[in-house]
Amino acid sequence: MLKIVALAGGVGGARMADGLAQALPAAELTVIVNTGDDFEHLGLKICPDLDTVCYTLAGLGNPVTGWGRMNETWNAFQALQLLGGPAWFQLGDADIGAHLARTQRLNAGQPLSQITRDFCQAWGVRPLVLPVSDDPVPTMVATSQGELSFQEYFVHQQCAPAVTGFRFAGIENARPAPGVLQAIEQADLVIICPSNPWVSVDPILGVAGVRQGLSARPVVAVSPIIGGTTVKGPAAKMFAELHIQPTAAAVARHYGARSAGGLLTGFVMDTLDAALAAQVQAMDIPPLVTNTIMRTPQDRLRLAQEILEFGMMR
Amino acid sequence: MLKIVALAGGVGGARMADGLAQALPAAELTVIVNTGDDFEHLGLKICPDLDTVCYTLAGLGNPVTGWGRMNETWNAFQALQLLGGPAWFQLGDADIGAHLARTQRLNAGQPLSQITRDFCQAWGVRPLVLPVSDDPVPTMVATSQGELSFQEYFVHQQCAPAVTGFRFAGIENARPAPGVLQAIEQADLVIICPSNPWVSVDPILGVAGVRQGLSARPVVAVSPIIGGTTVKGPAAKMFAELHIQPTAAAVARHYGARSAGGLLTGFVMDTLDAALAAQVQAMDIPPLVTNTIMRTPQDRLRLAQEILEFGMMR
Repeated sequence: MLKIVALAGGVGGARMADGLAQALPAAELTVIVNTGDDFEHLGLKICPDLDTVCYTLAGLGNPVTGWGRMNETWNAFQALQLLGGPAWFQLGDADIGAHLARTQRLNAGQPLSQITRDFCQAWGVRPLVLPVSDDPVPTMVATSQGELSFQEYFVHQQCAPAVTGFRFAGIENARPAPGVLQAIEQADLVIICPSNPWVSVDPILGVAGVRQGLSARPVVAVSPIIGGTTVKGPAAKMFAELHIQPTAAAVARHYGARSAGGLLTGFVMDTLDAALAAQVQAMDIPPLVTNTIMRTPQDRLRLAQEILEFGMMR
Repeated sequence: MLKIVALAGGVGGARMADGLAQALPAAELTVIVNTGDDFEHLGLKICPDLDTVCYTLAGLGNPVTGWGRMNETWNAFQALQLLGGPAWFQLGDADIGAHLARTQRLNAGQPLSQITRDFCQAWGVRPLVLPVSDDPVPTMVATSQGELSFQEYFVHQQCAPAVTGFRFAGIENARPAPGVLQAIEQADLVIICPSNPWVSVDPILGVAGVRQGLSARPVVAVSPIIGGTTVKGPAAKMFAELHIQPTAAAVARHYGARSAGGLLTGFVMDTLDAALAAQVQAMDIPPLVTNTIMRTPQDRLRLAQEILEFGMMR
């Protein structure tokens, strides 16, 4: 039996995880998910990346937006807005039901990992999905307008402020959730999904023991940057604001070559960036150049199969 | 200009208030609502009687159940239940939107009366609706199984435990909401709606200054007990468990005749109880015997008009 671990953020991570879930028996896949963007809103404890991953794996996800649920209704949100409630974070009705259930259990002291496990069972998600930590590690975005909480930056201000850095509050003391380090230790391959390196993957890497665990296993990252931009999200804009040209090669450099003390034993980049493969190779990171755009479930499966084959050779 | 005050609990109170709202210009009516059944559930601050009154006055109420909203959807509740969330208190989607908006504002320190005023404006409710107090006065029900919170008794245990008494926690220190005592002071007539005397009206009467204010104004109560039982709710069962025969006359006795230091200058009872009118008269409470069942909006209006005419003569 193989043991494959995926590190995932939101939409790109969820799609990659779905491809892997199609390609592998459920028992062979563990998805470790970013919690840096978790936040409290209207008293609800919301875990956007975890929900996007779980909804996608459950087949409940909204295929158009990438976040939220399909066939969602918006009656609570409309009623809330009529009463002057905040409109900047959209909340579907079924989504609110999940937030209410999770918030009640978190407030009762249950760990997020246990709640996620139970929710996955109820939703029919068969691979193991783990939040990286049960301890909050809220992403704080240093910007030209001062430090902002992640959702304030990401949703409310729509990533407009220029970023100057990131901080994951409390990460020094955050313990990996039960199962996280074991999964990494036993992994035949770890796949860093095409998620935002700064705000989706770095909070996972920053939890105690994760980076060290990865350094002993084959690790392949998939570039979220394609042709200098992203399918979704502000990763390219962040690279540029940090004075790094947003390219697939820059993503490879961000994680670093294993031979130079970094993480990667392989790197997956889009055919659109084939010209950059030599640069990546020159960093001593073996590249796989392929079509990485995941439009359909079939795209996800094909990409997952290619990455598994490529990564296992490293 | 007349000044009419209605004291209201849930469904019966809401229907009576609606009749009065039809019968009177909006500026002439103030509805003071019980908050003893307010509670927190799933982190949401829920005010069942206030919502029933406001939804009914706004024309948003569910005419079948009497509580909740018409054309409601239940997607959040279903999603919650799938995840093992509590099913004993039903929450519609639009209703949840209102609870989220209210909870956010209460948690930010805004008084319930101000929130209610703003919600009424958004919902198009034109009469003034006031919670009796901005301070919580949670109803505690003493039962054969020990003391229960009201919703635990009322909804979760469906009024099964036999009651032995009631307590409104903190009522000694609860201040009337701004406008409550002024409305009573200026009232040409106060109407105690056909609400549960024990758990809907008594918490209103128990707030400092209310009973004293009423004692200087004409006060007419409408019996919630008809033919020994109620249209809705456990009032008759409560009377019986407290060893009082549940009759319209017992309701009149509960509030008492003005001439004997009680509240009432008049009492409205159903034609079904015409035989008890002499008993009420004998307590020195002038009775009005009429059809008090409010099946349709027209029923509510007719009853309201009759009560206004009767009450103003007292």
